[in-house]
Amino acid sequence: MPVYKAPLRDIRFLMNEVFDFSSHYKTLSNSDLVDADTIDMILEGAADFCENTLSPLYQSGDSEGCHWNNGDVTTPKGYKEAYDQFVQGGWQGLSYPEQYGGQGLPLSLNIIKSEMMGTANWSFTMYPGLSMGCMNTILEFGTEQQKNTYMPHLVAGTWSGTMCLTEPQCGTDLGQVKTKAEPQSNGHYKISGTKIFISAGEHDLTENIVHIVLARLPDAPKGTKGISLFIVPKFLPTEDGQIGERNAVNCGSIEHKMGIKASATAVLNFEEATGFLIGEPNKGLHAMFTFMNTARLGTAVQGVAHAELSFQGALPYARERLSMRALSGKKDPDKVADAIIHHADVRRMLLTQKAIAEGGRAMIYYTAQIADKMSDALAQGDQAKYQELDATLGFYTPILKGFLTEMGFESANQGVQVFGGHGYIKEWGMEQIVRDARIATLYEGTTGVQALDLLGRKVLIGTRGKIIATYTSEILKFCGQHARNKYLRRFVWDLTKICTQWGLLTTRIWLTARKDRDIVSSASVDYLMFSGYAMMAYFWAQQAAVASDKIEKGDGKESIDFYKAKLKVANFYFDRLLPRSQGHAEAMMNPSRGLTSLKSEHFSFDY
Amino acid sequence: MPVYKAPLRDIRFLMNEVFDFSSHYKTLSNSDLVDADTIDMILEGAADFCENTLSPLYQSGDSEGCHWNNGDVTTPKGYKEAYDQFVQGGWQGLSYPEQYGGQGLPLSLNIIKSEMMGTANWSFTMYPGLSMGCMNTILEFGTEQQKNTYMPHLVAGTWSGTMCLTEPQCGTDLGQVKTKAEPQSNGHYKISGTKIFISAGEHDLTENIVHIVLARLPDAPKGTKGISLFIVPKFLPTEDGQIGERNAVNCGSIEHKMGIKASATAVLNFEEATGFLIGEPNKGLHAMFTFMNTARLGTAVQGVAHAELSFQGALPYARERLSMRALSGKKDPDKVADAIIHHADVRRMLLTQKAIAEGGRAMIYYTAQIADKMSDALAQGDQAKYQELDATLGFYTPILKGFLTEMGFESANQGVQVFGGHGYIKEWGMEQIVRDARIATLYEGTTGVQALDLLGRKVLIGTRGKIIATYTSEILKFCGQHARNKYLRRFVWDLTKICTQWGLLTTRIWLTARKDRDIVSSASVDYLMFSGYAMMAYFWAQQAAVASDKIEKGDGKESIDFYKAKLKVANFYFDRLLPRSQGHAEAMMNPSRGLTSLKSEHFSFDY
Repeated sequence: MPVYKAPLRDIRFLMNEVFDFSSHYKTLSNSDLVDADTIDMILEGAADFCENTLSPLYQSGDSEGCHWNNGDVTTPKGYKEAYDQFVQGGWQGLSYPEQYGGQGLPLSLNIIKSEMMGTANWSFTMYPGLSMGCMNTILEFGTEQQKNTYMPHLVAGTWSGTMCLTEPQCGTDLGQVKTKAEPQSNGHYKISGTKIFISAGEHDLTENIVHIVLARLPDAPKGTKGISLFIVPKFLPTEDGQIGERNAVNCGSIEHKMGIKASATAVLNFEEATGFLIGEPNKGLHAMFTFMNTARLGTAVQGVAHAELSFQGALPYARERLSMRALSGKKDPDKVADAIIHHADVRRMLLTQKAIAEGGRAMIYYTAQIADKMSDALAQGDQAKYQELDATLGFYTPILKGFLTEMGFESANQGVQVFGGHGYIKEWGMEQIVRDARIATLYEGTTGVQALDLLGRKVLIGTRGKIIATYTSEILKFCGQHARNKYLRRFVWDLTKICTQWGLLTTRIWLTARKDRDIVSSASVDYLMFSGYAMMAYFWAQQAAVASDKIEKGDGKESIDFYKAKLKVANFYFDRLLPRSQGHAEAMMNPSRGLTSLKSEHFSFDY
Repeated sequence: MPVYKAPLRDIRFLMNEVFDFSSHYKTLSNSDLVDADTIDMILEGAADFCENTLSPLYQSGDSEGCHWNNGDVTTPKGYKEAYDQFVQGGWQGLSYPEQYGGQGLPLSLNIIKSEMMGTANWSFTMYPGLSMGCMNTILEFGTEQQKNTYMPHLVAGTWSGTMCLTEPQCGTDLGQVKTKAEPQSNGHYKISGTKIFISAGEHDLTENIVHIVLARLPDAPKGTKGISLFIVPKFLPTEDGQIGERNAVNCGSIEHKMGIKASATAVLNFEEATGFLIGEPNKGLHAMFTFMNTARLGTAVQGVAHAELSFQGALPYARERLSMRALSGKKDPDKVADAIIHHADVRRMLLTQKAIAEGGRAMIYYTAQIADKMSDALAQGDQAKYQELDATLGFYTPILKGFLTEMGFESANQGVQVFGGHGYIKEWGMEQIVRDARIATLYEGTTGVQALDLLGRKVLIGTRGKIIATYTSEILKFCGQHARNKYLRRFVWDLTKICTQWGLLTTRIWLTARKDRDIVSSASVDYLMFSGYAMMAYFWAQQAAVASDKIEKGDGKESIDFYKAKLKVANFYFDRLLPRSQGHAEAMMNPSRGLTSLKSEHFSFDY
């Protein structure tokens, strides 16, 4: 059973050596709140909480699952106590305004904390995670009164929140939302409808649950332009902001899922529940989009989390399990067989996990700095800057969400594979990671939805391909700077090639799409995966650049093996994972009619 | 929830149109037993049993699982009744000798029957499946008395069998087996030890269970050369072959697994259990190898089974679920949105499943003919011919087992992906297929073990690469024959290229391996996957050749859409799946030191 250990050395490498978070923080308006000691305290405090409180509940929470009883939901044993500790530690308010009881620290620290928590116990982490969507919505679109009523409780964590979007007939296609909002004479609304797949929709961790609900006003236009947002609390707040009357929102059942079983996924029935409009009428979907990029970044973290946890489980097993002899001769001559870590193919699996976890972490931490700047712009009321930064982040998020969750799932499966048959047995804890990881490519927009967002919206419609030109020229600049570095030569060469190819593919799709609209869909997932492999290559090259620099300068001698390992893993990534981009490149350029010309009724002649 | 429908049109296409089973059967010594009517009766009888008896138990068996109580194991509700029907139908004896009550039909019919049964309900199919290993061993290595005692019951299915190989400390590396066999004065043996992961090791379906156990005699040499085989029945047979005294083999527990939960996986404790030597002392592992290829072929079927079942689940959902509009314009203008089958990316997923299921089925059916010839040679006592055929099959089996189970798992995951978030919910039945499919790359030799068997044993050591030259020249001959067929032009061209590349890669690894032994391990899985993509391409081209021929000749006009669909799916395979071979080609040729040079202790600096 994997026992989580926070990878603080790697986290600090990224924060201090690769991305210079301390300089970055100095550029933010809340820079006075964050110093080296604070960061250390947060990293170590989070590590302690994750290792000693959350990790021990990971497997037991899966075995027990959540319990539904007549509308009430009980989380697994120990979850309530862990959540109380979370609240007492002030963890929920880390990056929320001091005005509402938070600590006002940069969002990136919250993301890093969430990565640790999510790796230790993803199901647990979903409860406070959903509150963030709710808090962001209220902070940005709520009235002063709404903010004053809900934010202090949500920031403290004593209340939690949800996002109620999906209905039985629609998830991605929110234009089909049917839930109704009837205006009342007192200015409130009666909300009626059924929402499904509501994470943290009902549970016993908090006194109150604040639902953000997508619904239609009576006169609303059809489709996506007729959706409004409502605050529908489980208990209506009293005038002094405390728990009042029970509202008519009830949990009809919780889903039986493949994984993340300790996370309650609720069916919520709104039966003329009292709701309060938040933001402008019919602009609800637009409001949702405001936080889509940061929300998707939060889900991208799941790919890193499961790659990391599965690696932490597989590594000690590979060092201990004895089987056969390495082909190049005995490595453990005194033992009955060699530890399987000495087999090249087992190393290939472990290194895949490690390359994804560390490469993905670098991608997350880099984008977390953009998220910091966005929060800052929002706090400063600088909408223009926010929009500009959001457009930048918007290029990264579908790649990170789509690519990292796909790779996280593969990495979790490699962890099972290292264990052989034992990987299939629950007690070892490896198969749970696969089951938990499987949701990540589905929710918060499937991989296909991310791919269409990337290629259709962000690359073609949004920028006519310019975003790729801009990004690859950034990479090529890096290549120019390091062209004469002997450690980096092969990275520079491979990056140069893939940047050229990335641009070429984009142009070819752009030209093809004029006549063949479907190619945007038929090429999309291959384009997303290609982009992911290319982007992660750049992030590995950046890590290699820092490591080679340290080695050359003789800095951090006590870390020399760490830096050498970084170079080796970067090489592994370029040797073994980056080549997959070529299959995607070839596949995506085939005409879409290869997919569209088979009639629906001819997909099978037997059924 | 996927409801199984036997794909009889596709099965008949392969049997009658592609591989001409009727001519093939005429070459076998038992040809008088098999005619068109018999085959039809078997196909339709198996389809009926699978659709109406096994399929309805698929999901309930997973939910309920098996129950262990003080050494006894109860299978899920309905399994005993289904098994009784299976026995009454005479299904277990289909391809076993008439002398023991079987029907003496070719093994291929048994494989095709197993494919249908396994697709409808893999867990159920494992119980009779394990008996086959046991029967084959007794038939080939047992004394007349042993055959007469066990075979009639096993062939009838009233007794079942197991293969007891794995122990807690070893699975792949059977040289580490510790179970002891102490000779007794009466010529019997006392067997003591613990075996794990014993499929069908204990259950309530049959009156008796016949274990084939790997154990060591007191004077046995160390390692693989000191392993003998023993028959250890749960109940000792009386002199007249009926159920006698209970033997000292007990089921200590059953495993809690990720999937195949209706299949009982037993821990068996042998406590001086009475055993009977079968075959020669210390030659047990050699005997096991006799049936390894056919056993692995049986597991390869699982890849096809789960791709097929997941496709059968995803297809109707994709036709019904409405979401967004196709990029090239409305396809269901009267509906609120288009069915998702109109999105090119959803088609990509469905076609991947279909291409794997049908391409894999073709690979299985072709090799099933080799298996027929092997059984025939064995029945005729022609060891030389058997060995020759086994060497031929031995090239296919690691590719089919490794590649098809990996692709079956991917296909099962695509089925979940088509469902979006609903795929993650148990009630839809799609996630179960993923969990069930996950075992297939682990047992009966992991993908890594298959890859080393292919590249190390079969290609390099066994034939110095000649087997690839032989196989690719067969493909190139096909290409020559179809070079001027307008339907096949692109297949011929792509096949020619990949054959050249396959040969080149093999030669390069062969040359590299002289100095760098580890490359055989470091390249192995990429080599296996490359081989799988190349081989499946050939099997798709063969299907396309038949389909194009029928279209040209105007044969089977009522099937014109079927043939056209075959051509489209073949094109899809070459467009979208075959290109992945290029990533594997590039990855495998990197030097092994990229994997081996990182010290075990430097895989992590945090834990």
